Amino acid sequence: MPDRSMILSDVLELDLGDPLRAIRQRFLLPEGIAYFDGHSLGPLPRLTQAKLGEVVNDQWGRQLIGGWNAGWIDAPQRVGAKIAGLIGAKPHEVIIADSTSVNLFKLIVAASRLSQGSALLTETDNFHTDRYIASGAAELAGLDLRIESREKIEDSLDSTTNLLLLTHVHYGTSERYAMAAVTKQARGAGALTIWDLCHSAGAVPLQLNRDGVELAVGCGYKYLNGGPGAPSFLYVAEHLQDRLLSPLRGWMGHAAPFDFSADYVPAPGIDRFLAGTPPILSFAALEAAIEAFDDVPMQSVWEKSIALFELFDRLMSERCPELICVTPRDASRRGSHIAFRHPNAFAICQALIAEGVIGDFRAPDIIRFGLTPLYLRFEDVWSAVESCAAIMDSRSWDQPQFNARQKVT
Amino acid sequence: MPDRSMILSDVLELDLGDPLRAIRQRFLLPEGIAYFDGHSLGPLPRLTQAKLGEVVNDQWGRQLIGGWNAGWIDAPQRVGAKIAGLIGAKPHEVIIADSTSVNLFKLIVAASRLSQGSALLTETDNFHTDRYIASGAAELAGLDLRIESREKIEDSLDSTTNLLLLTHVHYGTSERYAMAAVTKQARGAGALTIWDLCHSAGAVPLQLNRDGVELAVGCGYKYLNGGPGAPSFLYVAEHLQDRLLSPLRGWMGHAAPFDFSADYVPAPGIDRFLAGTPPILSFAALEAAIEAFDDVPMQSVWEKSIALFELFDRLMSERCPELICVTPRDASRRGSHIAFRHPNAFAICQALIAEGVIGDFRAPDIIRFGLTPLYLRFEDVWSAVESCAAIMDSRSWDQPQFNARQKVT
Repeated sequence: MPDRSMILSDVLELDLGDPLRAIRQRFLLPEGIAYFDGHSLGPLPRLTQAKLGEVVNDQWGRQLIGGWNAGWIDAPQRVGAKIAGLIGAKPHEVIIADSTSVNLFKLIVAASRLSQGSALLTETDNFHTDRYIASGAAELAGLDLRIESREKIEDSLDSTTNLLLLTHVHYGTSERYAMAAVTKQARGAGALTIWDLCHSAGAVPLQLNRDGVELAVGCGYKYLNGGPGAPSFLYVAEHLQDRLLSPLRGWMGHAAPFDFSADYVPAPGIDRFLAGTPPILSFAALEAAIEAFDDVPMQSVWEKSIALFELFDRLMSERCPELICVTPRDASRRGSHIAFRHPNAFAICQALIAEGVIGDFRAPDIIRFGLTPLYLRFEDVWSAVESCAAIMDSRSWDQPQFNARQKVT
Repeated sequence: MPDRSMILSDVLELDLGDPLRAIRQRFLLPEGIAYFDGHSLGPLPRLTQAKLGEVVNDQWGRQLIGGWNAGWIDAPQRVGAKIAGLIGAKPHEVIIADSTSVNLFKLIVAASRLSQGSALLTETDNFHTDRYIASGAAELAGLDLRIESREKIEDSLDSTTNLLLLTHVHYGTSERYAMAAVTKQARGAGALTIWDLCHSAGAVPLQLNRDGVELAVGCGYKYLNGGPGAPSFLYVAEHLQDRLLSPLRGWMGHAAPFDFSADYVPAPGIDRFLAGTPPILSFAALEAAIEAFDDVPMQSVWEKSIALFELFDRLMSERCPELICVTPRDASRRGSHIAFRHPNAFAICQALIAEGVIGDFRAPDIIRFGLTPLYLRFEDVWSAVESCAAIMDSRSWDQPQFNARQKVT
């Protein structure tokens, strides 16, 4: 890349040289939109349309109850195995069930029985549902909830720690923990670690087995593109599976759900973390979405994420220096979104959306742009920064319609 | 009805006089099938096809993250209010969330705090997931699980009872509890009652408010036709809502989910029973399905259920007397399926399915036929009994292919 200011033709050349360029065709993206919100809700994969039609019309519509024997009953394991391939886990170490919140609850209560310590340690600035769930689960499990700032987490690990609960990539700043090192340090203190991978799976390269990860959960609707509120995945390392008992002992987690035996006997392995009957339509959408990753090595995804970040950061520094990048520039310390701080972040974000540049706002002063290599073009980054520069230059964000708060997700 | 044996033309006349005859058009039913498994998985409503297409293609596909502000975020309350109308509850007393198993867990743990007693009382023959969930929840809530046979339930209520957990309509025999009387008796003993309405909602007339029901859960995929594994509904009587705290403190149950406040503050009212982000595609299917009940009074549904039962019972008594009806003939004591006992129930059921008569088997010796007034015809009952008689007369069930056990749901 030349040292002069970049011009549009430089950026278009990056797209021409992009090995993932054709993957964008796997998604339906509305015209005139630069979609930087895939870290919140991934777009609709083409295959999902077809697959949902098949499950609804051919399976439910024509096979009716017979659908359970035509692939539904095994969906939690089958889709789990596909996600395992994206996160460096064995196929039988991942299962799809419930929501991230519910799965976190299961793992906290189940894992609390395995360690001696009395404290569930988490980060002040962990994602809110994680903190809320942790407070309820800790109470039931008889643990003290200990909340420390990010800087103090590692120093706070000691013999009183029962469990460490962390989100791998920070939902706001995109900061990333050193997963292997932190897990090892916790283990040294006698604690298991539960990783929330909501902002990691499908975005950064994960090697849960290699990194000694014991327990994890993650969501299906962000970088995995499984659709709004897609079911969550849950990972338990093989050696721990038969030592853990889910507090949510639903029939789908029974060793023989259809024997209707009087007493609960947990299924062997990861299956015991299923609870009720899985919502098959949402499962079908998630399963089809995972196929958008077929023949795309996670390493290529990550390399493109780095290139998108570097372009975004460079162009913003040149054109909109008043937006301060709060995401680490060291790629090994971040996830796959770039976040900027500005006192008027909310209004700027709204003004960008009005221009078709879809990022999102996180209180109090962060704008986030998801960098999703499967379907974003370098050209989209150019458009986003152009729009942002025009908004900042004209102060067009300072209009009432961009400052009225409404529900955001 | 004449006292002579019925003939087909008598049955066709019943269809001609059926006030719900036209409602069948609201469903897509495969040709050549008599579907008596709507108590396990309801068929595909026509409107669901259209509605899912809209949510997937127009909302997710085109509005992307904006879909949350276009009706997704309020789906749990909106669909809950529609179900409230079918079960005699106020709109703000019902919410959609998670699965029946997970919702049972929430209510057991939350309600256990309100009573003095130490025991969670349930029925030996309650549906299995209810018993399994109860065992896990009781353990965490510090309750003793007390399991008694159906006959002894009422006598077992005493000052040690903290909670009573019952399924209103028995999944096997279709026996129905006297909801108002049992709830009142439990309340007299100082206990709250949680009713599982999985086999009741959308089938028998329910008046939760009138009958003094405090707590209930139910499933969306049986008589409500919400699709495989459709989300569950949860009911909490208005006066109890702010006294209960869900153990699953997910962000969607927070008073202000998008304020991202550090501590969990439960939402006022029923909303506090939400946990994680709801699976919108499955919600959309359930919402569309509820519209199949539009302009159909539950009393008409129930009257047709009675007529279907009486025809089924009469024809089976005449043609297949070796199958013993185990469902109460007193309509006020049953739900909306009819169950027969036979030592070869499994093989007979398989032979019926091979003939296009879809009922189901429940171990050890029960065949169930769901009587779903929205789409079943009296003619279907005639076909079912004709097929059954032919199978019994020829002993065609006694072939190897009908005796090989496989996974059934």
